[in-house]
This record gives sequence, C-alpha cells and structure tokens, in this order.
Amino acid sequence: MINVEDVPGLKRDLQMVNMHMEHLCRSNNRYIQEMLNWVLRQRGKQIRPILTLLCARLKGRAADATEIAAVVELCHTASLIHDDVIDEADTRRGQLSVQKKFGKEMAIYAGDYIIFSAIQKNELRNRSRYGRVFGKLEAMFDGEINQFVYRYNTEITEEIYLENIRGKTSALFCIACEAGACAGKCDENEMLAVEQFAEKFGLMFQLRDDLLDFVSTEELSKKTIHNDFWCGYYTLPVIHAFSDADNGARLKEIAGNIKNGLQDEDTDKRITELIRGSNGFQYTLTEIDRYASEAKRSLAVFPGSAARKKLLNLVDSLQASAHGTV
Amino acid sequence: MINVEDVPGLKRDLQMVNMHMEHLCRSNNRYIQEMLNWVLRQRGKQIRPILTLLCARLKGRAADATEIAAVVELCHTASLIHDDVIDEADTRRGQLSVQKKFGKEMAIYAGDYIIFSAIQKNELRNRSRYGRVFGKLEAMFDGEINQFVYRYNTEITEEIYLENIRGKTSALFCIACEAGACAGKCDENEMLAVEQFAEKFGLMFQLRDDLLDFVSTEELSKKTIHNDFWCGYYTLPVIHAFSDADNGARLKEIAGNIKNGLQDEDTDKRITELIRGSNGFQYTLTEIDRYASEAKRSLAVFPGSAARKKLLNLVDSLQASAHGTV
Repeated sequence: MINVEDVPGLKRDLQMVNMHMEHLCRSNNRYIQEMLNWVLRQRGKQIRPILTLLCARLKGRAADATEIAAVVELCHTASLIHDDVIDEADTRRGQLSVQKKFGKEMAIYAGDYIIFSAIQKNELRNRSRYGRVFGKLEAMFDGEINQFVYRYNTEITEEIYLENIRGKTSALFCIACEAGACAGKCDENEMLAVEQFAEKFGLMFQLRDDLLDFVSTEELSKKTIHNDFWCGYYTLPVIHAFSDADNGARLKEIAGNIKNGLQDEDTDKRITELIRGSNGFQYTLTEIDRYASEAKRSLAVFPGSAARKKLLNLVDSLQASAHGTV
Repeated sequence: MINVEDVPGLKRDLQMVNMHMEHLCRSNNRYIQEMLNWVLRQRGKQIRPILTLLCARLKGRAADATEIAAVVELCHTASLIHDDVIDEADTRRGQLSVQKKFGKEMAIYAGDYIIFSAIQKNELRNRSRYGRVFGKLEAMFDGEINQFVYRYNTEITEEIYLENIRGKTSALFCIACEAGACAGKCDENEMLAVEQFAEKFGLMFQLRDDLLDFVSTEELSKKTIHNDFWCGYYTLPVIHAFSDADNGARLKEIAGNIKNGLQDEDTDKRITELIRGSNGFQYTLTEIDRYASEAKRSLAVFPGSAARKKLLNLVDSLQASAHGTV
C-alpha cells in the first residue's frame, strides 16, 4: 500500500508511534495488560498514523507528530473493540476479536481503558492543570476489572475486596476531591490530606452501599437491590459470612446454586439470614465507622474551614444512615 | 444528606455544575441527545460534585471548580452506564437504566460519547493545541449511532448512507490528517485543504471496504467478511441494488429473511449475484474513483511536497486494489 522506506524518516517515526502506543497502553493490572498486548500484537495497516505522519510533512520539514498519531490510532482501536462487541464479530486484524477472546464485558472495559488512557496520559498529563488528578482513572479501571475477574469466586478475601473497591470507588472520589482542592490552590501537603480523606470516604461510601444492597428497599435506594450477590459480586458482609464455619458453607452453597441457575423463592431471605447469623452486617458497620473516623481525621490540616465542617457532617450523615438500617 | 443551602454559594455552584453537564452533553444527533436527556433527567445525589465544590473551599475562598466537577461527574455517569450493560441492571437512579431503555448497543455508545465529549469539550478544547482536531470525535459517534439506527432498514438512501460514513469513517481520518497538519504548522487555508482531502479519502476508503466485504476473501482482508449484509448494515453496493426494480425486490426479500433468522447455504452467493446483476459493484467503483480524484485534487495547495506525492500514491494504490477485485 505504502512503502514506509520510501519517505526519509517515516519508518523511524512509525516505530516511535508504536512505542508511544505501547507506552500509552501500559497497565499494572495483568488482565488489562493481557488484553492490551493482544490488541497491540496485530497492528493492522496503520493507515491513520501513516496519514498523520505524512500530513506533518506537507510543508517540507517533518514535525514530530508521533505522539498525537498514537493517540488517534488508539481512539480508532478502542472504537473497533466496542464495534466488535456490538456486532458480535469474531475476527479482527487476522486474529480473534477482543470480545471473542476475552468476553464482551472485558471488551467494554478494554475499550474504555484505552480511550481514557490515551487521552489522559498524553494530553491531560502534559498540558492541563488537572492532569495529575485524572491519572487515578487508571486505578478505577483496575478495581472494576478485578471486581469482574473475582465474580462468582467464593474464595475472594477481605483484602482483595478492599483493594478492588479502593480502585472502583475511592479512585473517582479522589479525582473529585483533588480536582476541587487543586482549584482551591491547596499545597502539596494539603493535597495529600484531601487524597487521604477521599480514599477513606470512598471505602466507607462503598461499604455502606454494599450494606444497603441487602438491608434497604428499592424505593429508598432508587436502584435494583439484592443484586450484588445474584450477579456474583461478593461484598464485605458476604465475605465476612463466608469465613464463618457453618453459615459460610451454607452461603457458599447458595452462591453455587445461583451461579448454576438453581434458585427458589426464599433464596433472598435465606441469604440475609445467613449473613446476619454470622455477624456480616455488624462487622461491615464496624468497618464503616473505622473508615469514617479515618476520613474525618485526615481533614485536621484545615482547622478553621467551614467547608471542612460540611465534609465532616456529610461523613456523619452517611454513617448514621448506615446504622439506621441494621 | 447535605443541605446545599447551608454553605454560601454552594447551591449556585451546583446549578453551574448542572449547566456545564448539560452543555457537555449536547449533541446534534437526536438519538444521542435523547439518551443524554434521559441520563441527565435523574441526577442522583451528586455527591461527587458536592465533594469537589467543598474541597475547592477548604482554604476559605471558594475557587471555581464547577467545570471540572461536571467533567468528573460525567466520567462517573459514563462508567455507571457501561456497568449497567455488563451487569444487565434494569434500574438506575429510580428510572430504567440506559441499557434497559435504549438497548445494550446504544448504552455502549452513550457511555463512550459522554467520556469523549466530557474530556474533549472541556479539557482539550480549552487547553491543548489539538483541541480543535478532536472536536470531530462527535461526528464519529454521530455516524456510528446513525449507522446502528438504520440497521436492517432497507429504505436507507444513498444520501443517508454517505452522511453516516462521512461521520463513522471520515471524521477519524480528518482527525488523523489534521493532527499531522497541525503539528506540521499548516496555515488555516492549508488546514482546510487537508480536511477536504481527509474527508474524501475517508469516503473512498469506506466504499472500498464495503466493496471488499463482498468480493474479497477472509485471508486477504484479515477479518470476518460477508458480514455487513448479515448484520443489517446495508452499504453502497446493496443500496444501489435495492433501487433496481427486479433485483432490488429480491435482495430486500433476502434481507427480510436474514432479519427473521431464515437463511440457507446459498444465500451469500445469491446476494452477490443480485448486487452484480444490478451493477452495485460497478457503481461503487465509479464513486470510489470520483472521491479518489477529489481527494487528490484537494492537495494541490502543496505543489512541491514529497509527502503529498506519497499521499497521492496511497490513494492510487487503494483505488487500484478496489478495481482489482471486481
């Protein structure tokens, strides 16, 4: 189609584009990285990066367009990954499509990750004052994907679970809070305090959410409840109950039955009883209280602040509403 | 949870956040806009924007964090929309989830659109030299969603089809080419020429792709072929054939059967024969030639450029390979 050797420097530039793409597609999460490697293994014809590089040469002197060419190619790649989910396509660039190899759910995450990562790592980090803040989007995907990977796994530990929600939920609370603190001209030390606050706040918020999924009503929570367990997401009340010798074994049996499509009318009631019997709700409340205290303590560096008082109130009210349900 | 009236200016700031969110969630595409309206109708507790706004006040003087709060909340919203696809959740914030109301496919697009739009409209447009270039991502979604909306619709016209691929395919070629031209310091006039080139190039590229889906082999094209028609995407060769009195009626009948799950072994062969019988491939080739000429003509403003010569070669080789198959 086009011989890259023909244009001085084009081959080297294309190699640079590929290096940038690899750099933009790096993750510490091994499931994400496995998908990214699969995607990068087959590069296709790379007609878009070639066009970018040629258009950067139209005025004679070649300008460095390798980074932006990589970003554009990754946007294209992400869009193909989602298209293949929608069209249920099995093959792409001469190999299995991401949705066929890793499943539709993972393919949705993979596409999202690439979009966020490409735009954020390249553009935001380099040029925007909020670049640092958005860096945490990676941790968000990390948590979401790990949560999905541990779906229906009754051996999930409390540690792994906390690590997952630290990503899935706390990361975005960190972004929200640090973005505000950044706008409000907090110094490095104060930013760290805000980050600490947001992390603990996120943990407390998620544990409360997990609790409400069992003990609230649809009307109150305005979303489908009793859903986590049925979808195979085992949250703290459940994980604590799993560790109970007697109740835990019976709860794991129910989990297995649900996974295999066996269930009866009373299942929801029995799940709640088994968790209650092993103190799963009470244990979760204790953890909520602990993270609430830690969150509040982090804000000590803003002694006279009226906004701090409101943040403390917010923590208190979430904490109280959790206690009100059990 | 938190009374926004309690903190001076907080209510007004939150209204600003909502205004920014509405502004970031605007689209000329009515299907996208319908989904965005649905999403914005129920705002949830808005705990993340409240946190952002409070953290922006920790140092006393309230800083303007309303725009960034809107971006963070939209990232959160997009992630919820995709989560609901993955978990097949029916309810969200007290109303039907996007995936339940508009279908999983549209929900994938809606999430992507919000991510792209939030990051690009806010951050990129304001602060990066490539901001203008990425503005075309909106047109890409426009084309993708319209293509999906017209799936299985045998009344699709050539005009609508061209408009869809102008979005779906040309928009990203425009981004790729303009990003290069922007790096290469092209002036306003030259940028327009590059945009023209990229648009025509994209149309030619997509029409060639549409042709190859019927006349190429899996081995050559490295992806699932004969796929478009079966998925209900009617491309130019088909649309031209549809307009043929006799062959068109028979082709529409096959389209209807495929949609209803009825098919036999010979279907692929019959589709190809009917398109050939109504000159669908030949007509597509003529259009490829026309857009190829227009693309080449656009680059006349770079007379002595070696890169221009390569771009012309690229157009020629794509054109020739299309002719080689029919």
